Amino acid sequence: MKRPVGAVDESCFEVDEQPVPEPGPGEVLVRNIYLSCDPYLRGRMDSAFGLGEPVTARVVGQVVASADPAFAEGDHVWGFLGWEEFSLIRGADLTGVDPEVGPLSNAISVRGMPGLTAWVGLVDIVKPQPGETVFVSSATGAVGQVVGQLAKRAGARVVGSGGTDAKVAHAVDRLGYDAAFNYRTVSSIRDALRESCPDGIDGYFDNVGGETLEAALARVNPGARIAVCGMISRYESTDDPGVRNLISILANRLTITGFSIYDHVHRLPWFVPRMGKWLAEGSIVYDEDIVDGIDSLPGTFIGMLAGDNVGKRLVRVGEDHG
Amino acid sequence: MKRPVGAVDESCFEVDEQPVPEPGPGEVLVRNIYLSCDPYLRGRMDSAFGLGEPVTARVVGQVVASADPAFAEGDHVWGFLGWEEFSLIRGADLTGVDPEVGPLSNAISVRGMPGLTAWVGLVDIVKPQPGETVFVSSATGAVGQVVGQLAKRAGARVVGSGGTDAKVAHAVDRLGYDAAFNYRTVSSIRDALRESCPDGIDGYFDNVGGETLEAALARVNPGARIAVCGMISRYESTDDPGVRNLISILANRLTITGFSIYDHVHRLPWFVPRMGKWLAEGSIVYDEDIVDGIDSLPGTFIGMLAGDNVGKRLVRVGEDHG
Repeated sequence: MKRPVGAVDESCFEVDEQPVPEPGPGEVLVRNIYLSCDPYLRGRMDSAFGLGEPVTARVVGQVVASADPAFAEGDHVWGFLGWEEFSLIRGADLTGVDPEVGPLSNAISVRGMPGLTAWVGLVDIVKPQPGETVFVSSATGAVGQVVGQLAKRAGARVVGSGGTDAKVAHAVDRLGYDAAFNYRTVSSIRDALRESCPDGIDGYFDNVGGETLEAALARVNPGARIAVCGMISRYESTDDPGVRNLISILANRLTITGFSIYDHVHRLPWFVPRMGKWLAEGSIVYDEDIVDGIDSLPGTFIGMLAGDNVGKRLVRVGEDHG
Repeated sequence: MKRPVGAVDESCFEVDEQPVPEPGPGEVLVRNIYLSCDPYLRGRMDSAFGLGEPVTARVVGQVVASADPAFAEGDHVWGFLGWEEFSLIRGADLTGVDPEVGPLSNAISVRGMPGLTAWVGLVDIVKPQPGETVFVSSATGAVGQVVGQLAKRAGARVVGSGGTDAKVAHAVDRLGYDAAFNYRTVSSIRDALRESCPDGIDGYFDNVGGETLEAALARVNPGARIAVCGMISRYESTDDPGVRNLISILANRLTITGFSIYDHVHRLPWFVPRMGKWLAEGSIVYDEDIVDGIDSLPGTFIGMLAGDNVGKRLVRVGEDHG
């Protein structure tokens, strides 16, 4: 086991067996069901986790033993737990999940932080107006698939990019994007944006940075807004080639805003039922790409960074009776 | 005469003699006194002006003949006139200037658009708070010298950069910057910012872009605001090396906002008397670098782009009786 330098590989992971602990006062023992697999975790692997400690990520599970009166055995919960089958955590760090309102896994995807991330970046920063063009990179990802649909609801023309033809088809056929392209196979991203955004770009929801951001800067309209949610193109590279076309910030009076969902977590109680209603009525759809078994985690995570998933990637490590 | 490609040189300019015209209905003939020399004009020389037509820039002058009842002979005015000794213009495009409130030249510098540019970028975008650190590039320029003083009034620690030791001394001794450095002679801008901004950068007023922006991105604090007012480092380069460290936008939840003063011209009537009061009471100081004679214009402009001025560069082409 080692820290990744550049691309992460299987040698950075190890599955370790430990006895299941007992909860002390105020603690809860959770049987984990879904573990979240997110690109941002790659960045955190550089230093945020102790080497040999489990990766901390969003997890949905079920309480098996509780020494916190707020939670009882059988309750469903989510929290920042470990990539592990059982987690011991303070009850104060858990949030209850109602298993009746939809798939349990949604609590850490569309009815959770990735969904709220889409909302905050789009509504607070991109501010799409009817008739405008909104471009979304990683158009079918955990966040992007919600961004595209919310932008469409706002009356914008919505264009997406993704790294496989399957993602491109999914964006248009399933998520309602007006146009989409495969950034790996187009002759240039800049040409692809010229074709797919004939009226320019008024808002860009950036999940990738790098070359795609550079191309978008060359295609934006005056007054365009760019929300920087992720820069997946940078997470595994050890050198930084720089981004050109920044003169566009000046020439087009752009606003570029980076944001972190951790500054907005307090809005989840407001967001969760709202998104739950949209999902229930079918006005927002959401796809998850669920892989089974904790042993599959390293490969699943590495594959997601390479782009082999369509939809939000999760690993199921326990039975979902919901 | 030719359009500049890359660096502008004397062969791009020509002094041409034409008869002084007579005003037609609604027109005013202005005897020009001060012509503004601004870095942004370099960008406009690529295509905005007709080849062989005078450069259009801010000019202060005096009415010599008027066929617009709103202006009488002897009135002082400013407007977007030509780099020429006399200009014929519609009266509707002129603004009156009160020669009693201060130097006439101030109407196109501190009590005019460069002053308002400083206000808008600093107050609307950088939003300095007491105790924060604000960094200003081109710290002693037409705009920068006002930014530094306004940031200081707001209670910030203010750090500037400039391209000569004279500018650096001027920033600290005359304008009240807490620290300043010569970006041409420091070992690296990044190291200079580390030393001069020990608590990081909370707001950056960018007049230059390029390497300085890249270094500032590496030194900003979470939540920092960057106002992009100019990118002088880019105006004369034909290639774009790109800017690194954009991951900081995400990591530090930055807001980067490009702006153009043309979107804010309506605020001038509010701004001019306010700045006039500060100048009169001495709480804001302002320095102009005035060169005489229309023949000196090409060299004066080229020299300004190379950084040989301290303060706002103007060319005086007619007598100032004010």
